[in-house]
Amino acid sequence: MPARLQKLLSICRETGKFGNTFRKLFLKLTGGKNSMKTYPECYTCIFRQAVTAVKLNCPDQNLQIQTLQKVLNTLAEIDDKLSPSAIAGETNRVIRESIGVDDLYQADKISSHKNAIRYLDDLRTLLKQSQDPLEQGLKISAAGNIIDIVHANDYDLWEEVETTVSQDLQGEGLEAFRKKVNEVPHLLYLADNVGETVFDRVFIESLDIPVMYAVKSGPVLNDATLKDALAAGIDQVAEIVETGSWAPGTILYQSSDKFQQLFKASPLVLSKGQANYETMDEQGEKVFFLLRVKCPVLSERLNVPLGNLVLKQGNPLN
Amino acid sequence: MPARLQKLLSICRETGKFGNTFRKLFLKLTGGKNSMKTYPECYTCIFRQAVTAVKLNCPDQNLQIQTLQKVLNTLAEIDDKLSPSAIAGETNRVIRESIGVDDLYQADKISSHKNAIRYLDDLRTLLKQSQDPLEQGLKISAAGNIIDIVHANDYDLWEEVETTVSQDLQGEGLEAFRKKVNEVPHLLYLADNVGETVFDRVFIESLDIPVMYAVKSGPVLNDATLKDALAAGIDQVAEIVETGSWAPGTILYQSSDKFQQLFKASPLVLSKGQANYETMDEQGEKVFFLLRVKCPVLSERLNVPLGNLVLKQGNPLN
Repeated sequence: MPARLQKLLSICRETGKFGNTFRKLFLKLTGGKNSMKTYPECYTCIFRQAVTAVKLNCPDQNLQIQTLQKVLNTLAEIDDKLSPSAIAGETNRVIRESIGVDDLYQADKISSHKNAIRYLDDLRTLLKQSQDPLEQGLKISAAGNIIDIVHANDYDLWEEVETTVSQDLQGEGLEAFRKKVNEVPHLLYLADNVGETVFDRVFIESLDIPVMYAVKSGPVLNDATLKDALAAGIDQVAEIVETGSWAPGTILYQSSDKFQQLFKASPLVLSKGQANYETMDEQGEKVFFLLRVKCPVLSERLNVPLGNLVLKQGNPLN
Repeated sequence: MPARLQKLLSICRETGKFGNTFRKLFLKLTGGKNSMKTYPECYTCIFRQAVTAVKLNCPDQNLQIQTLQKVLNTLAEIDDKLSPSAIAGETNRVIRESIGVDDLYQADKISSHKNAIRYLDDLRTLLKQSQDPLEQGLKISAAGNIIDIVHANDYDLWEEVETTVSQDLQGEGLEAFRKKVNEVPHLLYLADNVGETVFDRVFIESLDIPVMYAVKSGPVLNDATLKDALAAGIDQVAEIVETGSWAPGTILYQSSDKFQQLFKASPLVLSKGQANYETMDEQGEKVFFLLRVKCPVLSERLNVPLGNLVLKQGNPLN
């Protein structure tokens, strides 16, 4: 990486603020491409999350409003060419700093983990019952993506799992993924939410190749960190690595050099959930997106109805 | 009104911008009180409306985002002591100016009117069937408040009317209103949405006293203006007056002197819908609020479950 960019990157990492200047410079110098942009409805969704986070963590009504005004100001000023996840990462930082709370969804994460871990053996049985364990494992992993504080929090987990796993996997990525996973020396697996980690574990332990499981370096939304991956026992089935970033999704220019090198060296990447799709959708055909479609914008973009499971291969780099 | 305030008011009316300085000065000089404040969730709702309005009226995606950034900026800067309706009035002005469209919900209003006017005779029959025409008329008028572009737009109108009219009127305002309406020389009726106007007409023609029917002076959301009231035939049953303002609800300090005098001189006011409640809730016990509860914030504030019809007397001035 050029020295000029390296210096700017250090400053950004220290402050946690990744401005637009840095993003543009990075893309120019590395030849990277923009990820999914933000749509009008995304602002509503990001702000709704902010209201939830602020009310959950801050009893002082004046500070609630002050914090939300800062969030509104951030949304008004931020570059709309950023992905929704990158913007949500920034508004999360604003909230954390304004109310002085680092982990905004701690209670949700604890209850999501507890809710998921009790189904560990049931999920294993569900996988073994299938004649196509790879397809079934992918479906189980994607079904775990229902666990979410952004789009829904009122559901019966096991009922959802049984319903969604009985559906077809949309997105036409299955056969290409099957071929690749039998050829490559290792799989880079981009984690998503706490609780979903348990579903990931069940899928990963059914695979025959080494897996690197990438988690966030700090708490953002209900995304899994090292601690959460350990709680789900991922260390027993994969090597856990950190992205170096606190942003939702995987924003390469905000990640550590080490993670960027790992990404570059990985011939196959399984990217879990919506935020990873939003931030990784222009990284080529080695990336496969595995998620449950939970938002109308993504449903339209992927041309898959809401509630469906998707495995979709990334577009070729051009 | 003091000359100083009068001058400031002229400027505000000319520009359509009613700043915080003006509001504070007005309240100080007139001894008025603040209306319902804005809650965190209200910002989400107001912004969601803005997204809908912008997408409805502006095909240019860049202008959509630019306009929404202006709205976000307005929401970040505006005084949170204003009512949600006053803030929505301001964001509506920002949108109108940014995209150059005056009437953001014209198509919705046309279809709401058409949908409602075909039930005119059915509504009259429904009123006559009751042994208590005053209560039934109030319920019919409140049932018309389902017509709304903010909270819902997917319903069967007649089915909703029949269901809601069969429920009790909440809010314990019925007997006090019955007593007052038999004593006073005239009723000031604050209109709400287009289409709801047809329901208002059916109720008003069952009353024995003169009614002044107050509409907005310009298009905002789907609120009724003079043209809309005429289309519903209100002129055949009441005298139509304008508030002098484009804001949703009835914000006295933004209204014309003539309307302010009428309000002051009216011994009984029937205030229709949520926006009028938000902006009139501190105007004393001569105001009765008639609405369908459509938002969680108001449901909690009024202690009435969502979907119910309410007639509630204002609190005494102190």
